[in-house]
Amino acid sequence: MYQLPPALPPTPQAHVDKARSLLDRSVGASKILHLPESCERFSRDESEAEGRIPDLVVLAESAEDIRATLAAAQEARVPVTPRAAGTGRTGGAVPVAAGIVLDTTRMNSIVEIDRGDLVAVVQPGVILKDLHSAVEREGLFYPPDPNSVDSCALGGNIAENAGGPRAFKYGVTRDYVLGLDATLMGGTALRLGRRTVKGVAGYDLAGLFVGSEGTLGVVSSMTLQLIPKPEMVYTLFGLFSAPKDATRAVEAIIQRGVVPRCLEFTDGGALEAIRRQGVGIDPSAGAMLLIEVDGDESACDRDMVKVGEACTEIGAIDVLVAQDGVQRDKLWAARRELSRAIRELARNKLAEDVVVPRSRITDLLEAVERNGAEHRVRTLAYGHAGDGNLHVNFLWDEDDEVPRVQQCIEAMMRDVVAMRGTISGEHGIGVLKIPFLPIEQSEELIAVQRRVKDVFDPYGLMNPGKIFATSSHRGC
Amino acid sequence: MYQLPPALPPTPQAHVDKARSLLDRSVGASKILHLPESCERFSRDESEAEGRIPDLVVLAESAEDIRATLAAAQEARVPVTPRAAGTGRTGGAVPVAAGIVLDTTRMNSIVEIDRGDLVAVVQPGVILKDLHSAVEREGLFYPPDPNSVDSCALGGNIAENAGGPRAFKYGVTRDYVLGLDATLMGGTALRLGRRTVKGVAGYDLAGLFVGSEGTLGVVSSMTLQLIPKPEMVYTLFGLFSAPKDATRAVEAIIQRGVVPRCLEFTDGGALEAIRRQGVGIDPSAGAMLLIEVDGDESACDRDMVKVGEACTEIGAIDVLVAQDGVQRDKLWAARRELSRAIRELARNKLAEDVVVPRSRITDLLEAVERNGAEHRVRTLAYGHAGDGNLHVNFLWDEDDEVPRVQQCIEAMMRDVVAMRGTISGEHGIGVLKIPFLPIEQSEELIAVQRRVKDVFDPYGLMNPGKIFATSSHRGC
Repeated sequence: MYQLPPALPPTPQAHVDKARSLLDRSVGASKILHLPESCERFSRDESEAEGRIPDLVVLAESAEDIRATLAAAQEARVPVTPRAAGTGRTGGAVPVAAGIVLDTTRMNSIVEIDRGDLVAVVQPGVILKDLHSAVEREGLFYPPDPNSVDSCALGGNIAENAGGPRAFKYGVTRDYVLGLDATLMGGTALRLGRRTVKGVAGYDLAGLFVGSEGTLGVVSSMTLQLIPKPEMVYTLFGLFSAPKDATRAVEAIIQRGVVPRCLEFTDGGALEAIRRQGVGIDPSAGAMLLIEVDGDESACDRDMVKVGEACTEIGAIDVLVAQDGVQRDKLWAARRELSRAIRELARNKLAEDVVVPRSRITDLLEAVERNGAEHRVRTLAYGHAGDGNLHVNFLWDEDDEVPRVQQCIEAMMRDVVAMRGTISGEHGIGVLKIPFLPIEQSEELIAVQRRVKDVFDPYGLMNPGKIFATSSHRGC
Repeated sequence: MYQLPPALPPTPQAHVDKARSLLDRSVGASKILHLPESCERFSRDESEAEGRIPDLVVLAESAEDIRATLAAAQEARVPVTPRAAGTGRTGGAVPVAAGIVLDTTRMNSIVEIDRGDLVAVVQPGVILKDLHSAVEREGLFYPPDPNSVDSCALGGNIAENAGGPRAFKYGVTRDYVLGLDATLMGGTALRLGRRTVKGVAGYDLAGLFVGSEGTLGVVSSMTLQLIPKPEMVYTLFGLFSAPKDATRAVEAIIQRGVVPRCLEFTDGGALEAIRRQGVGIDPSAGAMLLIEVDGDESACDRDMVKVGEACTEIGAIDVLVAQDGVQRDKLWAARRELSRAIRELARNKLAEDVVVPRSRITDLLEAVERNGAEHRVRTLAYGHAGDGNLHVNFLWDEDDEVPRVQQCIEAMMRDVVAMRGTISGEHGIGVLKIPFLPIEQSEELIAVQRRVKDVFDPYGLMNPGKIFATSSHRGC
């Protein structure tokens, strides 16, 4: 049975005191929280990961505040956990060794939107939906759209390489990051990447930072690529008797050469959660696809017909087109609230975010069902079928079920890797998935990554205890 | 005036002898060249970079041959220069310290094309056009298309992060690399990345390898993402009196929300080179745009109209649609042969591959003209206007012009960086651009990249003398 790595020791008080004294002078006491009651809310994110109450929270307002914090932290040997909106699902922003939380939510400016160059320059505290609104007002489009779009910030999106439903057609955050201003532990500021779409001058360190979960440095500014906003979107949903019909429909849609912008799958259990939210869905349906096609009117018309044909050919119970914006918004609201709705089905749930090659989704769903039956654990699944990316939920009520749940999750991770998939599609490894990384990656590969981290953070102070099972950070 | 870094010393003979003896046993003598006359052709690529004749050439036939070569090389402390088709433009495949050239051209299998998962698995010696043909027969599409498409190999495409005309709409090689099997100096084999489109398990080392110019390791297999093949392509060309009209037309096209798959610019001097190839072009034209739109018929029709309107609005001399495949092929053949055609305009030429934000292309062209006049150097430019990526050519006949040419090039590099551009769009840094890297990147950023290289190659034996100005490799 898998175990989370042992908690890191708290930061020694003398180190904290030194850091606080340095920070009072450089950043200024008005931007520093130190009372436990003020710092307490920075001990967690939206995952089940358990953190410590940080000793200090720096509310950064500028790149210079970030630089000064990372300089003081290294001098005092205090770990730093960077944090934007704290909406992560694997504990990336959770301070497992206490120390300093470096909060960037005050850095929430959209610095620039350039229609000619198709770029936006933003600070890490910008909320994703605010960026969406701002660029769409200009007729432009920034595709990544994790479900937390209303509350997540760009800094966290970069740290975790956020995806979302539209990734099937448009890719993930990394595909839109051109350049980053990043500061390393110790205070060295680096301008990574570029403002142009192309560029091959040296190593792609901007790309390396995306998805590195705040373990390599802290980003103070990001230059993002934009694209023209699609003229129209059509939303369809197909109801199917069983999950395998829905996944066959996904294949049939793709075989027709259609690239929907979203291809969202919901299994029977997740549909039940949606029904409980008051959305009327045919009771005979055991799976649903929520499909969006976009482009100009003729492309949407053509793709909608092909999607409809593909679903009908598979024997869909029904294929419906959202008649208006209200109906569309209601469907999406239900989809976005699924994670919360599922929480009401049992006292506890754990959601795992796994990916298999698209052709193996049916196999994954069957494996999950088989494992659930074997370990007597309730499961349900929904997610981004086009990408082979499913959020598989494990539900339980009583504490004595936990060992069975853990066995069931570990069995799924092994199945996923055996199908040539990956243990994390868009949530990262953080703290919660550390036990599973060795299932997917060799000892040598993990060792190389640790050494890469050492290049950027020789004292192991930059978001310690994440991705790799570091038993302790050095220098404390 | 800029200077190339001093040549690295040749590899000591005792080290070479030891490597040869190890390789005879592990790889087998039949795959090893050692006579200078056999090795000579591996001393250069398609750039002006000067190499040494390698001491040994290993003609690898398998991942195991690559592993054995890198194990022997590290044991004997002999540098290794990996090589695919050798079509690079900055000297990436040139063995500047002699030692071993590790040739992968025999590893030319397309291992798999999976229509369901939309992936191809290929070996590094596969010629790009062969991959294009194979996937297009399946109704699929692999977009990167450097001009050397008929002769370049995927291994080099990965090493240099190859682009090409279609990058404006479809992105560059890195955007299509999902996973890589790579072997590090010393022989450690790593499976980087994945087979799925999404994935955030640890650092993006596959992305880091793309564009690293063979300095981090050698790739033996690559998993590439494919997309559905566009139904149709329309090719247009617009003739303009002056370059600035053509670049204004590029802006006008993009402002209309059109994303052509290609937006190729040719200035007056380059047009003249095309005319000399026997392609009839209006003598009053001082610039040309070659534009391709793709998609289904209605999208092509609509985009073609918008492109035509944009060009006419700017006052194009003429806007022509290629009437048939023959006309289209003739235009593209002329475009692809430009590099060679320009060679006939003077005894010497150097082509630099720079990028500026798209809105600054006119400024770049003006700066090149101004610098050319000041230093009395003939220049001409063509390239991927949609990406702000121009190939600027410097022409001269006599040796005593070289210092002026060098000053002119360096002035352009400084202008490019001042415009927030980059010194290399798709050719890499290799050997030839080493002097310019410090114009774009800070000392700290270069130092961090060197330390990243050390993680993968602690003895400095993996393609030494590239990207960074290493005065010597260690351990020899």
